[in-house]
Amino acid sequence: MSLLRTNVDVNTISALTIVRLSIYLRCVERLASLGIETISSQELARRFNLNPAQIRKDFAYFGEFGVRGVGYNVIELRSYLREILGLDREHRLVIVGVGNLAMALANYSRFTGQSFLIVGMLDANPDKIGMRTPNGLMVEDAGRLADIVIQRNVEIGVITTPASAAQKVCDDMASSGLKTILNFAPVQVKAPDGVLIRSVDLRVYLEELAFYLTHGIPEP
Amino acid sequence: MSLLRTNVDVNTISALTIVRLSIYLRCVERLASLGIETISSQELARRFNLNPAQIRKDFAYFGEFGVRGVGYNVIELRSYLREILGLDREHRLVIVGVGNLAMALANYSRFTGQSFLIVGMLDANPDKIGMRTPNGLMVEDAGRLADIVIQRNVEIGVITTPASAAQKVCDDMASSGLKTILNFAPVQVKAPDGVLIRSVDLRVYLEELAFYLTHGIPEP
Repeated sequence: MSLLRTNVDVNTISALTIVRLSIYLRCVERLASLGIETISSQELARRFNLNPAQIRKDFAYFGEFGVRGVGYNVIELRSYLREILGLDREHRLVIVGVGNLAMALANYSRFTGQSFLIVGMLDANPDKIGMRTPNGLMVEDAGRLADIVIQRNVEIGVITTPASAAQKVCDDMASSGLKTILNFAPVQVKAPDGVLIRSVDLRVYLEELAFYLTHGIPEP
Repeated sequence: MSLLRTNVDVNTISALTIVRLSIYLRCVERLASLGIETISSQELARRFNLNPAQIRKDFAYFGEFGVRGVGYNVIELRSYLREILGLDREHRLVIVGVGNLAMALANYSRFTGQSFLIVGMLDANPDKIGMRTPNGLMVEDAGRLADIVIQRNVEIGVITTPASAAQKVCDDMASSGLKTILNFAPVQVKAPDGVLIRSVDLRVYLEELAFYLTHGIPEP
């Protein structure tokens, strides 16, 4: 029998566990699309280059999913992972700083499934306000952020401004009541306590490749 | 005395260790900019929310850097980390698929320091060829990829095409002799043995935020 634990203590779960849950979900989606019905943690690990003990440990925070000797039911596991990650409902985002990256994200949103919806594209530059974006929105005045967050039930703020504007936008997002922020500006930004900010740092990816160019490509 | 090991076995080092080296480098750059001359692993860990035992273990793969009871010399450590990550020389990149994301990366390259240089922006669409990009390059025909890789000593291929074109571009990059590829297309792409591909998956970031929106923001 499988059981999903609803009250978990987030302070006991590392951010890496959550990233892995997201990766497990992709793997399970792939299995489901292949029509595979059940899978063991060993087989899940083998197919996707993961660690079976790690998989079991990560799942154990959230309940008991598998059946001993049989493994996981793929459809059920997908549904549990979506529920754990909070993907069983829509999260609304607002993007502040409308340049090439914001436009790319507006396109990319087609691939984030039904769980995320961009409901605002904001900029402080009067020349950009009123411009149409690829997702059918019009660029609005960044000064309206607080109103838009409340009126449209926004939960996630995305910063795509130049580095110089990022801290101010983060402060505005926090004071508008946003609790989660994703920062793409190439600068360290601090959010107040109670607000979670994550930065997407593309340098890390490039530096990993540089490492392997220097020391050799690992064997598959 | 500090000592940098030059021959390391990449098969014994996890990808996460390399990501952490990249994060340590950022921390050490920050310390250097603050004029701090020496730091212990405990203090480095405390300041940047890292794990001191993990830091020592990660460094141990590459040599002996610190002085017992004194800690690391910040400038020396920065220089070692740059050398380990292969950032003490320039790596040339070519971007295939010139849309909003490629344009954003062309701008972003200003922030990747002296270690990475975009030397080509390629597209298969004849309407885009000849267009000028923010980094002063002109869009070239993707059919010229193999020539450009050889003539300009390109080491890293960046895929920013739509999902449908990504696998073909990856294959072309591998047969052009590129050994490291960074994929931004929202699709799973396979590279042949001996070629390392990493995908930047923005869904993982959004899903982590959705998790915390569902279960609560962790305490600082």
